Amino acid sequence: MSARKMHLAAYVFVPSSHFVGMWQHPFTQTNFTDRALYENLARTLEQGRFDLAFMPDQLGIPGTYEDSFRSVLTRGARGVIHFDPTLVLQAMAGVTNRLGLAGTLSTTFYPPYHLARLLGSLDLLSGGRAAWNIVTTADPAAAANFGHTEMPGHDERYEIADEVLEATSALWSSWDPDAMVMDRERGVFIEPDKVHRVDYQGQYVQVRGPLTLPPSPQGRPVFMQAGASDRGRDFAARWAEVVFLIQNNPDDMRAVRADIRARAEKLGRDPDGLKFLPAVQVILGETAGVARERQRAMEAMVDPALAIGLFSELVKADLSSLPPEMNYRDALQETAYQGTAARGSAQMVLKAIDRDDLSLAEAATLYSTSHFSPQLVGSPVDVADRLQEMFESEACDGFVITPIHLPGSFEEFVRGVIPELQRRSLFRTEYEGSTLRDVLNLGPLRRA
Amino acid sequence: MSARKMHLAAYVFVPSSHFVGMWQHPFTQTNFTDRALYENLARTLEQGRFDLAFMPDQLGIPGTYEDSFRSVLTRGARGVIHFDPTLVLQAMAGVTNRLGLAGTLSTTFYPPYHLARLLGSLDLLSGGRAAWNIVTTADPAAAANFGHTEMPGHDERYEIADEVLEATSALWSSWDPDAMVMDRERGVFIEPDKVHRVDYQGQYVQVRGPLTLPPSPQGRPVFMQAGASDRGRDFAARWAEVVFLIQNNPDDMRAVRADIRARAEKLGRDPDGLKFLPAVQVILGETAGVARERQRAMEAMVDPALAIGLFSELVKADLSSLPPEMNYRDALQETAYQGTAARGSAQMVLKAIDRDDLSLAEAATLYSTSHFSPQLVGSPVDVADRLQEMFESEACDGFVITPIHLPGSFEEFVRGVIPELQRRSLFRTEYEGSTLRDVLNLGPLRRA
Repeated sequence: MSARKMHLAAYVFVPSSHFVGMWQHPFTQTNFTDRALYENLARTLEQGRFDLAFMPDQLGIPGTYEDSFRSVLTRGARGVIHFDPTLVLQAMAGVTNRLGLAGTLSTTFYPPYHLARLLGSLDLLSGGRAAWNIVTTADPAAAANFGHTEMPGHDERYEIADEVLEATSALWSSWDPDAMVMDRERGVFIEPDKVHRVDYQGQYVQVRGPLTLPPSPQGRPVFMQAGASDRGRDFAARWAEVVFLIQNNPDDMRAVRADIRARAEKLGRDPDGLKFLPAVQVILGETAGVARERQRAMEAMVDPALAIGLFSELVKADLSSLPPEMNYRDALQETAYQGTAARGSAQMVLKAIDRDDLSLAEAATLYSTSHFSPQLVGSPVDVADRLQEMFESEACDGFVITPIHLPGSFEEFVRGVIPELQRRSLFRTEYEGSTLRDVLNLGPLRRA
Repeated sequence: MSARKMHLAAYVFVPSSHFVGMWQHPFTQTNFTDRALYENLARTLEQGRFDLAFMPDQLGIPGTYEDSFRSVLTRGARGVIHFDPTLVLQAMAGVTNRLGLAGTLSTTFYPPYHLARLLGSLDLLSGGRAAWNIVTTADPAAAANFGHTEMPGHDERYEIADEVLEATSALWSSWDPDAMVMDRERGVFIEPDKVHRVDYQGQYVQVRGPLTLPPSPQGRPVFMQAGASDRGRDFAARWAEVVFLIQNNPDDMRAVRADIRARAEKLGRDPDGLKFLPAVQVILGETAGVARERQRAMEAMVDPALAIGLFSELVKADLSSLPPEMNYRDALQETAYQGTAARGSAQMVLKAIDRDDLSLAEAATLYSTSHFSPQLVGSPVDVADRLQEMFESEACDGFVITPIHLPGSFEEFVRGVIPELQRRSLFRTEYEGSTLRDVLNLGPLRRA
C-alpha cells in the first residue's frame, strides 16, 4: 500500500466551475480569454507535479433549447465560455514539459479522422502528454449548433462511440513507430511497408487512413471517460484508462470503481490499468475555522434564483414555483408529475445528495457550489487527511480537484496540500517518465 | 507609391514544400514532429516582421486513391505529414506577440460551428492574430477518410462554402464586443441582450448559435483564399482579404489581381481591402553565382521518377511510359487521349509553364522544385530587386515566401533580404497595431 501513489488532475473550467460563482470570487482572475491565464495555471500545476489538467466541453450554451440561456449568460454559469479545448491545452503544453493535457471531445459530433488528427497533433506537439476525455453528446443545444434535427438514443450513442474508438485507435496505429527513417542517402523518408491503410468499415463510421502523422512518444492519447450508466460502465471497462467520477461519498466511489474494475477484468484487462479519479472540491484556510468562513462567503455568492434554475435544469423539471424553504425531497417528489425524464433525473439527484435535512434552496445551493461532489473544507493538513482516507480506503486512485477561485485555488493547493501529501509519501516529488502514460503508471499500450 | 508597403507570408509545409526534396536538403532540421521547430521558426519570422505564417493542409495522403501513396511516402513528398494546422499555429502563437497565423481549414468537411469555435479560439488565444485560409475539398483521399462516398461538384462546393462563410461570420458576430461586463456587484457576467442566436438556415448548413466565445480583438479571423477558377474568383471577391496566388510570372499575377479587384469593387468592396500574395521561391547565396550553384544542388536532390510521378498526378494522366527527354508540350499532348480531366489539367499546366524548350523530365523537375512559382535566385540585393520590381509593377501586394530548407531559408531571408527591403522603405521596421487585421492594413471590419 505504501508504494501506491495518488494521481491528481485539475479541473479547468471558466468562468464558473463546479462552483458556479467562481468568476465572482474576489480572488479570481477574470482574464478568461487570455492565454496567459492558462499558461500560468499550467506552470503552477507542473510545479505541483499534477498528473494532468482536464478541460470539460459543451458544444452549445446550456438551456438554449428552452430559450432560457439568458439567465445562464447573465450569471456566468457553467458553459457560457468554451474554447476548443485542444487549443487551450496546446497553449498549456507550450510552457510545460511533463504536465498531462486532457481534452473533452465528442464522439457524437466529430468524425474519427478529425479526432485522431486533432488529438494526435496535441499528443505529438506536447511530446506525448495528451489525454482524450471521451464523451457522447445528447445536448439539444449542440444538436442545433451542428444542424442535427434527430439525435441518436443513449445506447446508440455508445454504439457509435465504440466504432469511433475502434477507428481512431486504428488510425493511431497506422504508422509503425519506426516508419519515418529519413534516410537522405537513399532518399527514403518513410519505409512504405510500415504505413498502413485502416479501411475501417463500421455501421456508423468509415475511414480509410492512413493518418498523416506518426504515433506520439506514448503511442496515442490516454483514454479518459466518465462512465455512469450501465452501458457507460461497459464502455469505460473496455476503453478507459482514467475514469472521472462525480460521486458524493466514498462508499459510492468505491462501489463504482469495484464494478468497472470487475467489468474490465472480465474483458481481459488489468484493472490497475484504470485509474479512478473522483471530483473533490477543496476549500482551504489557514485553519479549519478560516476555511469554514471561506465556504460561507462562497455560498453567499450564489444567487438563489440561479441555483434553483440550474437545479431545475438538472432534474429536468421547473422548480421555480415551489417554496424555496420546502424540504428538497418533497420538492423532488413534485417532479413526479412532470414526466419520465424528470422522474428519473430526480431519483438520481436524491441518491446523489443522500441527506434528509435540506430545504430546496439549500439543496440547490449545494448543487451550484459543489455539483454534489465532496467538499473538503479545512487546513492543508485536514484536507490531506481526507484525501488520504479516501485514497487508502480504495475509494479511488486519486482526485480531480475543482477550484473555488482561479488560479488561486490551485496555487493554495500546490503550496499547502501537495507538500503534506509528499511528506506522507502519498504523492510524487518528481515526475517518473516523460509521457502521460508513464506518469499515470498505466503500463504498456495495448495495440489496436 | 512610396507609402505602399509589401506584406510577407511564410509558407510552412513539412517535410517538403514547393521544393519536394526539402527534407533531404542538408541544412533542413528534420524534427518535423517537434514543436520546437515551429516555435523557433515563429520567433525568426517575428524578428523579421513577417505579416504571417501560413500552413496549407490536406485531409489525406495524396495518391491514396490510386494505391499509389507508396512513392509519396517513400520520397517524403508534399502531404505525407499534416498536423491539424490550428495546433501548430497555437504553438507558434505561444512564443510570439505580433506574427499572424493562417491555417487552412476545409468548408467541405468541417461544420460551421466547429470552424467558428476552433478558429475563434486561435484568434482569441493569440490576441487577434488568426487567419483562415478557406478551401473547398475535392480530394478523394479526404473523402475516403471522412467516410464520404459522393463528393459535391466544383460549383456546389463553392455554394456550400458561401453558406459556411455566412454562418461562421454570423457566429463570430453573435456576441457584441461589449457583452462580457463581468460586474461582480450586480452579479452580471454578460448583458444577455448583447448575445444573440444566429438561427442560420442554409440549404446545406444550419446553425443556431450563439458561439461560446466573445469576438477577438480583431473581431474574427482574417479571411484568406486562393481563387483560381471563375467561381473561385467570385468567392474571393466576396470574402477574401488575403489572396494566395500561384502564378509563374508577373503578368499573370497582375491579370488575376486586376480581375478579382474589379469583381470585389462590383460587390461594393474597397479593392485595397484585398491583398494579393503570390508564392515565390527564394534561393539565396552570397553572390548570384553561389545562389545558382545552390539551385543546381537542390535540383539534383529531386528523384526524376518521383518528379514524373508527381507531374502525372498534376495533369491527371500517367506520363511514366513516355521518354523523359521528349519535349514536355508533346508529352502533354499525349494526355489528350486520357480523358477530359487530363486534357483540362494539361492545358492549365501548359499555360503555367509557358516555355517551349523543356523536356518532360525538366518540366517535371521544375514542378517538383518550384510548383511553377517564380524562383528568385541571387544575392539578397538581387532578390530584393526582383521583389521590388514585381511589387511596384502592381503584380501583387506582397509575397508568400516558400523555402528550400527549413528553417534556414527563412533565417537567410530575414538576415539578408528583409534589411534590404527595409532600407528601400518597402517593408515595415516595426509592426503597426497589434492584430493581424491592423498589420495587414485591411481597414475596419465589415460586420456580417
